[in-house]
Formats: sequence, C-alpha cells, structure tokens
Amino acid sequence: MGSKLTKRAEDYSKWYNELVVKADLAENSGVRGMMVIKPYGYAIWEKMQAELDRMFKETGHENAYFPLLIPKSYFSKEASHVDGFAKECAVVTHYRLKNDEDGKGIVIDEKAKLEEELIIRPTSETIIWDSYRKWIQSYRDLPLLINQWANVMRWEMRTRLFLRTAEFLWQEGHTAHETKEEAIEETQKMQGVYADFAENFMAMPVIKGTKTESERFAGALDTYTIEAMMQDGRALQAGTSHFLGQNFAKAFDVKYTTREGKQDYVWATSWGVSTRLMGALVMSHSDDFGLVLPPKLAPIQVVIVPIYRSEEQLQQIDERVGELTKELRAKGISVKYDNRTTYKPGWKFAEYELKGVPLRMAIGPRDLENNTVELARRDTLEKENLSQDVLIDRIETLLVEIQDNLFKKALDFRNELITEVDNFDEFKEVLNSKGGFLSAHWDGSSETEEKIKNMTKATIRCIPNNAQEEEGKCVLSGKPSSKRVLFAKAY
Amino acid sequence: MGSKLTKRAEDYSKWYNELVVKADLAENSGVRGMMVIKPYGYAIWEKMQAELDRMFKETGHENAYFPLLIPKSYFSKEASHVDGFAKECAVVTHYRLKNDEDGKGIVIDEKAKLEEELIIRPTSETIIWDSYRKWIQSYRDLPLLINQWANVMRWEMRTRLFLRTAEFLWQEGHTAHETKEEAIEETQKMQGVYADFAENFMAMPVIKGTKTESERFAGALDTYTIEAMMQDGRALQAGTSHFLGQNFAKAFDVKYTTREGKQDYVWATSWGVSTRLMGALVMSHSDDFGLVLPPKLAPIQVVIVPIYRSEEQLQQIDERVGELTKELRAKGISVKYDNRTTYKPGWKFAEYELKGVPLRMAIGPRDLENNTVELARRDTLEKENLSQDVLIDRIETLLVEIQDNLFKKALDFRNELITEVDNFDEFKEVLNSKGGFLSAHWDGSSETEEKIKNMTKATIRCIPNNAQEEEGKCVLSGKPSSKRVLFAKAY
Repeated sequence: MGSKLTKRAEDYSKWYNELVVKADLAENSGVRGMMVIKPYGYAIWEKMQAELDRMFKETGHENAYFPLLIPKSYFSKEASHVDGFAKECAVVTHYRLKNDEDGKGIVIDEKAKLEEELIIRPTSETIIWDSYRKWIQSYRDLPLLINQWANVMRWEMRTRLFLRTAEFLWQEGHTAHETKEEAIEETQKMQGVYADFAENFMAMPVIKGTKTESERFAGALDTYTIEAMMQDGRALQAGTSHFLGQNFAKAFDVKYTTREGKQDYVWATSWGVSTRLMGALVMSHSDDFGLVLPPKLAPIQVVIVPIYRSEEQLQQIDERVGELTKELRAKGISVKYDNRTTYKPGWKFAEYELKGVPLRMAIGPRDLENNTVELARRDTLEKENLSQDVLIDRIETLLVEIQDNLFKKALDFRNELITEVDNFDEFKEVLNSKGGFLSAHWDGSSETEEKIKNMTKATIRCIPNNAQEEEGKCVLSGKPSSKRVLFAKAY
Repeated sequence: MGSKLTKRAEDYSKWYNELVVKADLAENSGVRGMMVIKPYGYAIWEKMQAELDRMFKETGHENAYFPLLIPKSYFSKEASHVDGFAKECAVVTHYRLKNDEDGKGIVIDEKAKLEEELIIRPTSETIIWDSYRKWIQSYRDLPLLINQWANVMRWEMRTRLFLRTAEFLWQEGHTAHETKEEAIEETQKMQGVYADFAENFMAMPVIKGTKTESERFAGALDTYTIEAMMQDGRALQAGTSHFLGQNFAKAFDVKYTTREGKQDYVWATSWGVSTRLMGALVMSHSDDFGLVLPPKLAPIQVVIVPIYRSEEQLQQIDERVGELTKELRAKGISVKYDNRTTYKPGWKFAEYELKGVPLRMAIGPRDLENNTVELARRDTLEKENLSQDVLIDRIETLLVEIQDNLFKKALDFRNELITEVDNFDEFKEVLNSKGGFLSAHWDGSSETEEKIKNMTKATIRCIPNNAQEEEGKCVLSGKPSSKRVLFAKAY
C-alpha cells in the first residue's frame, strides 16, 4: 500500500501521477517515455478493448494487422501528413549488432545499414493505403471497413503515464468508400460509437463536435472529436474520427471502377482511441482515497473480505462465501474473495478502496449467525447491512446504480463547467478562476485562434455538433460570428 | 478468386505460398520480410488468441504490457541470451526526421541521435525482468504469473508468410517462482496447455518433449517443446516453454525474502506461441482445393448460398434462410449468408472451398418446396440432402464430426511418419525417401548432433517426454544410448 495519496486540491497533477502508480495501473519503465502497463491497469484496458471491439464489429468492421515499420518515403506521399507525423518519431537505421572488438559489449554493425530508414508507425494511414491499392479494384470491394489494434510511437518530449507516452496502445480504423457522403456518414457514425462507449461504459460525458482547421488531423478534411472535462477543469480529447476526403487515395493511387464503369478515387476515413482513455477514466471519477471505477469496466466488481479471529471462523466464512461467489458469478458479476491470511482486513479495505473496486463486502462470524453482510459502495463510501437473502439482487441493483451515479455526477460537474463568456476580459477571468469549457463566439479565423492560444493557453476544443445558430461577435476580434465554440485548456 | 492453386504433390512450398495469399490470410507488404495479416487470416488468429487467453487465465495468469524498445545494454546482462537474440534485430538510433535541405523529402536529424541505441524487442525477458526487480520483494509477491500479447521483431534474411517473418505477433508468458520445483512444474504445465490447444482446437497432433542443449532457448536451462508434423514430412516446432533457472533473476538482481526470512534469487520460466501457428494450421489440414479449417477455429462455420433464377425466388429463400440463421446463431454457430447478386453460386462454392469453411449449405426453390437443403462438408467434400427439420441438429453433429475427423486424419498421417531407424544408412534412406520423424538412438553429444545436421539437414526435434528406456547404440557414433530421440527436417 505505501504512504497516503496527495490530495487533489493540493496538487492535482501529483495526485494523478501517484494514483496511477499506487493503484497498480502503470509505471515508468527503464526506457525514456515508455510505460509498463501493469496487470490491474491492463485488465481495465482489456475490458475497454472488448466493448469497443464488439461495437466495431456490430457496425460491420473487421480487424487486420499491418507492419510496425514504415519506409520513410511513404510519409512524403501525402503532403500535410508528413509535416504532422514524420518528425518526432523513432527511426530504425540498422538491422544487426555485433560483438564489440574489445569483447565488452555489443555495437551496431555498420555493414547492416538499411538502404532506406524505417519509421516505427506513429499512425498507419500510409502503410495501410499502400495495401488498399492492391485490395480495391471495383465498387464491389467497397466499402472496406477495417480496424487495427496496435502499438504506435510518437517521440514526445514531456511524457505522463497514459496521457502522453512515447509508445501507446490504440485502435485505428481505416475505411474506404464509394462516395463522399458515405465516408462522412462513417466518420460521424464512429464519433457516435466513441461517444456511446465514453458515456455508457466509462460513465464519462462527452461533447461531440468538429475540430477547427488548425486542430485537425494532418491530412484530414474534417476531424470529429469527443471532448471530456476532467476534475481539474481541463479538457481531454478522448477520441477522434477523420474524414480524409480523397487525399490518401490520391497519394497512394487507389482507384476503383464505379457502378457506371468509370475510374475514380475512393473516399477515406480513419478513427482512433488509445490508452489515453485510461487517464481520462482515472481523472473523471477518482477521489482522494484512490480510484473509482465504473462497474462496467471494473476488473473486480465485488471484493469480499472475511473478518475473523480464529482459523475455524475463517473456514466457516470460506464455506458461505463459496456459495455466494458461485451465485454472483452465475449472474455474470466478477468477484474476488480475498482470504489471504498474510494481510489484515483494514489493509485490504484500504487496498481495494485505492483500486476502485465498486462494491466491498465484509462478512464475519456475527454475520454468519445473523445471516447478514456489510456492503460498502466505493462511489459514495456509504455502508449498509443487509440480509444474505436479498444480497445477490441488491448487488445487481447497486452495480447499475453506481454506474448511473458516476455518469450523473460527472455530467453535473461538466455542465457546471461550461460558461458562456461574451468578451475577452470575461474569457480570461473565467478561464483562470473557474476553468472548464468557455462557450464563446469566434470569428472563424486561424489567426484569432492562434492569438487566443498564445495569450491564454486555451484552444478551441470543438465546434459542438449541436451548436445553435446565434448572432454574435468574436470574443477577441469583435468580428461577426454565427455560433459559439468551446474553448478550454486541455491535456 | 483468380487462377487455380498449384497442387501439393507438384510443389508443396509453392502451394503453401499461393494458398496463404489466395485464401486471403496474409500477403507481403512493401516492407521487406513484413506481412500484412488480412481480415480473414486475422479472424482465425483472433479465435486462437481467445482460446489461448482463456486457457492462460484459467491457469492463473494475468496480462500486462511492456515497452516495445529495449536499451541495448539490457541484452548484455544475460550472457547466453545476448548471443542468441541481440544480433539480427532492428536498431533505433534516432528520434527525429527533418525536411531535407533541397526541400524534396525528409532525412534523419543528426542532432536527434540516441545516446544508447534501442532494440525492437525480439523477445522481452530483459525488459520484463528489469521490471520484476521492482515488483518482487517477498515470497508474498510470488508466484508472479504474467503474459503479454505483443508484436516482436527478428531480422530474418529469408522470410515466408506466417512461418518466418521479420515482425510477428505472439504471446510471451514470463513467470517468477519461489522454488525450482515450482518453476519446472509451471514450464511443464504450459507445455501441456499448448499441447491441449494444438490438439483440441487446431486438430493438430503434437509430440511433447524437451530440446537438446544446442536447440534450447538462449538463456534457458531446459526448453520444453511441442512438435507437429506437416503434410510434406517436415516437422514444425509449434510452441516452447522454457525453464530459465535463476539466470535472469541473477542478471537483473531479482531477489526475494523467503518464508524463512532469507534473501534468495527467484526462479523463472518463459513460454510462447506465435502467428507461426497459422502456418502450421494451413499445412496440417488443407488440400489442393484450398484451406481446410477445424470448426473450432473457423471464422465462418457454415456458409449458406442461395440458388435462384428470379428476384422473387431469392426473396423467398432470403426469408427462409433468415429463420435458419437465427436458429443456428442461437446455438452459437457462426453463419454467413452470401446472397450477393454480383457473384454466381459456382463462384461462391469455389470461394468458400478455398477459404476452408467447414460446412456449405445450398438452398434453392425446389428445396423450399420439399423442405430440404444440400449440405457439403469441406473436409471430405461429401454432400448430403436432408430435411430442414433435422438441419440444425445435423449441423451441430457435423461440426463436431469434422473437428474429430481432422484430428484423427492428421494423427494417422503423423503416426505413419514416425519411423524407427537403427543405423545411419537407414537414417539417410528414410529421411530422403519418406521424411517425417526418425526415431533413433543418439549418444547425447552436441558434436554428433551437429555432424548429423551438417550431413543430412535433420535436427533433433525433441527428446519425447514419453521416451522409453531402451538399450541402444547411437545411429552415427555407435556409442551407447538409453533412449530414442526424434530427428526430422524442420520448418
């Protein structure tokens, strides 16, 4: 367990860093900027993957796998893509090591220099579109709806566990379509899938919108995003879906025979979410005692801790708990019974609180006599005593209640942090005192956006999909604007 | 579909290469030695992963994730490991590219040279044991039972789809234990899990045994293997499990406090299977018409093809098939109904034969009248007409029958290819005429093993776990031997 967690109010950033490590989610490795995802953290990621994978398949997508290494020249084929991605990346230059001449170690074998450098994928558009050229001949091959689960690498200078790491895990969807309309529909559909996942599984409310030109993915005509609000008033981009137009089809010469027998370039999308979601999950719900996990993503939904003085009491409890866990598992509830004799109940209580297990059940000799147990909710820290007869039903109900409560709490918190501001003084004032999303008019120019960013560190997180038409004046330039956009400081 | 497949008898190697591509399993990418795993191939791999992952979890293992890149110096810490693994590998030397001065492309930024080169993992013992030092303090932290699903890279000069590729996907288990006995037990247990998976899911019989010293994993004290026999008489190592002793614990200084309060090094194992299994699956069952997949790993278990002349007939068939697929899916059977109007039934028949779908059902207007369908088995190519009333039960039975039949067929074939030989002329004769496993006496020396390998290209695949004590003389040296080992040419 180790020492106590820093409080959020004291130092939010420190609280986060400590919590990720203490709750056994991840830790830094011996390699700069690269993390180790520990079993408990990875189990949460696996739950995320399973749900997302199911959603992707239900919307007609198939998985595939493309090479980790991409020839340097591929990046140069799409002009804006190369500027965005081919710079801060890991470059493979040699394919062999040899024993050092002094016999003390191994060194690069200069004879094994690659003719062309290979880049560890920062994203896979280029290598995938190089394959699609061979896969797509006719409209009968379309739509092509493919997803890849993979590791990618971007050489970040300042890294933080899950939020920004040189290597991270993600999924990247890459689709090809006959028409522009169909590709845009796909882009929006996947934004919807991401929002559904964020809200209904992570219990994390998000705002759906589009990015401004300067915040778009390198090579995209339009980037759809879901934006979440963290407890410290900073926004977090939780997933993006890009309409790529015909840019990659043209760069990689992917043409198809249309229904009318003509040749045309296909239309493309790509979309992704990553292990960054783990950071978002932590910062959406957790508190000064540790993690708080939504039941739908918790690796352990119910932990049972026996309270006993004698070996005989423990045996009796073991027996009763054996029956209860069987019933719970039959309902699809994941249960851990921690009857280790090497740790005391108090230690276990703190441990599972730290790890965010949604429900903790304690059971002692008196409970056996009275046919009762004690249940504690992680989200509200409330305890209740109840009869074992109603226990299973109560647990089922509580897991749903906790999931709903976490979402509602986060939604109320987020809504409270959307502030309409109508002039730049107000903008700065609210940004610094309260934080959160600033709903403001903007004149639509990249220049103004850039100025505001330089002056305040706030960026336009998105132009909300549901933004209402409203006459207004840009918060900085005073020029006319037809709808409000959302600014925030962001992760 | 394209042109016909080369026959196995004509050119087995060509048959394999063609089949993997034509059946849409995988293809070469634009990057030397690296493959693209296509959706149909990846779907089979996902089924393998799901079963293996379930088996690993049932035996108490958890998943985690460790960095892709390993500092060069880590490899030098375990003496025999560095020779085995740190040579033919991809080396990252820089972390940035920049625009070329002539503005025509991107080049390495020499200012962004890494102080220490990073190696793309060829296997993860070193980086994982560097973490274990921090995770293991006391016997209470043991056993540590961790698995990783990952991509790895070994710079192979001659590559073949699935069988030998520079990048491949695999799982690697890495465990730490209190005692030598417990670690050996774990090593053997995982060999058992692999054999169970190979035989009961891949329908591929394997021989369990141990490797000779010269064929062991670099850094292992003992390597347990499962060896399969391919249709061309060559063996294929399908999975290995290594007892690592205290080598890695010593190299990375991983000590723990024992139950007696002393300090000791922990005992280690590692074990893995890879996408190589995809190649083994293809070469175990497939025929001159294409893939043959065991039902338990087939992404599509039943394909339904409508036979019709009019749009009206197709509508009637669609309706009936809608009901049948619903019933089949309720039984957990994966069904594809291919009612595309852009391809003819004959084309579809050939396509699903090529792709190894275990059962094909054809249904036409006369079948609707007579309440019948036609079912065709992929393994035996037998067809039968039957009443729709018994269809669902019949399909369930047939899927089990096909799974069993494939295993039995492969087992008979494999057993036929184990030949006892008692002198070196016989050894060479059988190896060249018949191939397969040669069960022969060997004097136990690496020298003899090496000589035989140089003379015949046959290697000792394993010392079978169930080898009987038997007085004999080494097939080459004539020196005494107490049991037979299995030689073969291998993939």
